[in-house]
Amino acid sequence: MLSTTERTRLKRAKHKARTDRGELYDLLDEGLVCHLGVVVDGSPRVLPTGYGRIGDTLYLHGSTGARSLRPEGEVCVTVSLVDGIVLARSGMHHSVNHRCAMVFGTPRLVTDEEERTAGLRAITEQLAPGQWDVVRRPDAKEMAATRVLALSLEEASVKVRTGPPNDDPQDHATPIWAGVQPVRTVFDPPVTDPGLAHDLPAPEHVLARVTGR
Amino acid sequence: MLSTTERTRLKRAKHKARTDRGELYDLLDEGLVCHLGVVVDGSPRVLPTGYGRIGDTLYLHGSTGARSLRPEGEVCVTVSLVDGIVLARSGMHHSVNHRCAMVFGTPRLVTDEEERTAGLRAITEQLAPGQWDVVRRPDAKEMAATRVLALSLEEASVKVRTGPPNDDPQDHATPIWAGVQPVRTVFDPPVTDPGLAHDLPAPEHVLARVTGR
Repeated sequence: MLSTTERTRLKRAKHKARTDRGELYDLLDEGLVCHLGVVVDGSPRVLPTGYGRIGDTLYLHGSTGARSLRPEGEVCVTVSLVDGIVLARSGMHHSVNHRCAMVFGTPRLVTDEEERTAGLRAITEQLAPGQWDVVRRPDAKEMAATRVLALSLEEASVKVRTGPPNDDPQDHATPIWAGVQPVRTVFDPPVTDPGLAHDLPAPEHVLARVTGR
Repeated sequence: MLSTTERTRLKRAKHKARTDRGELYDLLDEGLVCHLGVVVDGSPRVLPTGYGRIGDTLYLHGSTGARSLRPEGEVCVTVSLVDGIVLARSGMHHSVNHRCAMVFGTPRLVTDEEERTAGLRAITEQLAPGQWDVVRRPDAKEMAATRVLALSLEEASVKVRTGPPNDDPQDHATPIWAGVQPVRTVFDPPVTDPGLAHDLPAPEHVLARVTGR
């Protein structure tokens, strides 16, 4: 079960809230990038960045020089997926079918080398499943230049909207078309780096991700 | 030209910065949702939400009760589009080809009814082009329950990554495949609301958005 705190409890549209921890995992595992919210000099900053999950921990990484990876206190990590555009009979009922996870907490700087490597592996595999085992691993210099943060999934919320528009009853009889336009993210066939020194085909785990293959 | 301030100047990967205001407009006009960053009780909160642009102003809306629409001071609005997964020869050079706009500022509460309507129209049209002119417009009750915020595009940055991986020279000769897996957002054929009272076809402006049609 997901925690309920003041900020993870939905104030409006409470029916959109999900409390199953499995839904949180599924959503996080499907996303490609998160939006990391930090406070810098008192103002919010929102950065798209990669992430990875191991159990109940989310990993983030960046350059040791990145200001966003040295947050003042808490962060908010949001992963949102758009599933469709809700086309209603009235302007105000237009909406987006989506799934959104929000995670709140104070990240922990990971110092243990084994956990740092596991975190980087999780981040790489989230973006590019199957790649970690076939590419060159980080060397000592790269590890030294990289900051890895761990964020507990203890305080998190999941919000989901599905289905047709929720028009007002008095609008239902109007002769205006309504429905949902589904939106999907697709992966196209890989494009080989023109600088590749060898005549190598794209590996099977990359081809397997191509949508509709 | 885009402004350069302390927080819109890229500290790393400076070659990814774009300074053409037209690129900012194009990116904002292509996105479906933004990620709105606000500070609530001193902590960041990142919410996916709709938006619309008119000239150099971004419009946001929400319920009058929404805490996120009554921000403490500044906000950050980020619109990011994923174009591809960069598959490198080394783990640390894996990346995302993406376009990202960040807008900073203190939003203005819109009170003029004409501007409020124009803002809501822009937000609806961003999500669902062509819909505003065919659906029921907001009535007085809906307008009273809606907060419209305007954010100037004066302080904004655009960051773009394109092309193949930037592997280290010493990795280029290794027999590891590298390239880019393109990622696209597609719109599928619309699904009619099962509760539609009339036998109406989906309108042409909705069908026109279907990818590959």
